[in-house]
Amino acid sequence: MLKLHGFAVSNYFNMVQLALLEKGLPFEIVHVHGSQSEAFLSISPRGKVPVLETPDGFISETSVILDYLETCGGTPLLPTEPFACAQVRSLAREIELYIELPARLGYPQAFFGATVADALLAKCKAELLAGVATLKRHGRFSPYVAGEALSVADLYFLYSLDLACVVAHKLFGLDLLADFPAARALLERLNQNPHVQRIAEQKVAEMPAFLAFVKAQARG
Amino acid sequence: MLKLHGFAVSNYFNMVQLALLEKGLPFEIVHVHGSQSEAFLSISPRGKVPVLETPDGFISETSVILDYLETCGGTPLLPTEPFACAQVRSLAREIELYIELPARLGYPQAFFGATVADALLAKCKAELLAGVATLKRHGRFSPYVAGEALSVADLYFLYSLDLACVVAHKLFGLDLLADFPAARALLERLNQNPHVQRIAEQKVAEMPAFLAFVKAQARG
Repeated sequence: MLKLHGFAVSNYFNMVQLALLEKGLPFEIVHVHGSQSEAFLSISPRGKVPVLETPDGFISETSVILDYLETCGGTPLLPTEPFACAQVRSLAREIELYIELPARLGYPQAFFGATVADALLAKCKAELLAGVATLKRHGRFSPYVAGEALSVADLYFLYSLDLACVVAHKLFGLDLLADFPAARALLERLNQNPHVQRIAEQKVAEMPAFLAFVKAQARG
Repeated sequence: MLKLHGFAVSNYFNMVQLALLEKGLPFEIVHVHGSQSEAFLSISPRGKVPVLETPDGFISETSVILDYLETCGGTPLLPTEPFACAQVRSLAREIELYIELPARLGYPQAFFGATVADALLAKCKAELLAGVATLKRHGRFSPYVAGEALSVADLYFLYSLDLACVVAHKLFGLDLLADFPAARALLERLNQNPHVQRIAEQKVAEMPAFLAFVKAQARG
């Protein structure tokens, strides 16, 4: 059986967990925080979660895991036709590169009480705004990001936009979705999904242990 | 026929151009710099190159284009077996996320005479070192990054490590490959490839026009 290593406060872990649940593939969770320990680096070369344990070995990197899962059966989250598949994948990549990664620059200040340097905050803000404009330009929202069916683009959307909106609000006083009702409606729709609700409950339950872990890491 | 939009100073453009050449797929080049013009944004939602023009429409994002090209025939650059494919893809992603993107933080200072804020330089250096350690941990180099055959991981390797090494040397006085002879040997091997040499000549030829373009952009 597939085993998903990670923890439910990680937005990338949750993208993969939601994929597994939506596809209807059986899996177990191995609860672990990312780390630079030799043991963990042997299954995840950059020390990050999630990691998927398969009968053949370990796979890291969320986008790679999501592509692998498409070969495991269950409900598809990518079209089979190559051009349509590319459109979904490019939406997912745009959300990751131009929204999630810029927002991540602000996470230490928005979520963990640290202070982020002005140069990083300026980059975070400028790139977030450009990233949301990109999504507005390319996303279909009919009603899902890439069209009529839930796809991997929605996994990136759900677990990137929520955090990006908190970062923009807390650090810059901005509402990223003020002029983007289609995105707001999709977030509301996705948050009605029972699998999404189950993951949200896990996140709440795991948050205290994760914050304690972050504090311990910061103390070195 | 496939058309590749972009310019040969772009390392991501060159990853795709090398893929097309190695796969033996016929293609034309449409020479264009990335921009935020409405016309260009209509084919590339974030305004970046490369863009692949196909009979069905445009595809942006390098990783997505490379996956699409695997469906177009020619010499494969990814294994067909899902787990082996995932290992190649994760190496490619690790090089992109943990070497190319951090190095990119230093490009303005290393290549374009700008000054990069200390906070960004610190992030650039720390992440580059961690990224190279990741590659050392995961790469096979036997002799190619993912094993015996040239793969998409080598495209990312060739066109990320070269620039990352310049950034590390110019900005931090570091030799990223000092303790990594396998990577150095692979760079040398790849630089003997006739397609790589052809792309390098294009890059030299296009550099003056690109630098003029960057200057004009900087003047606004």
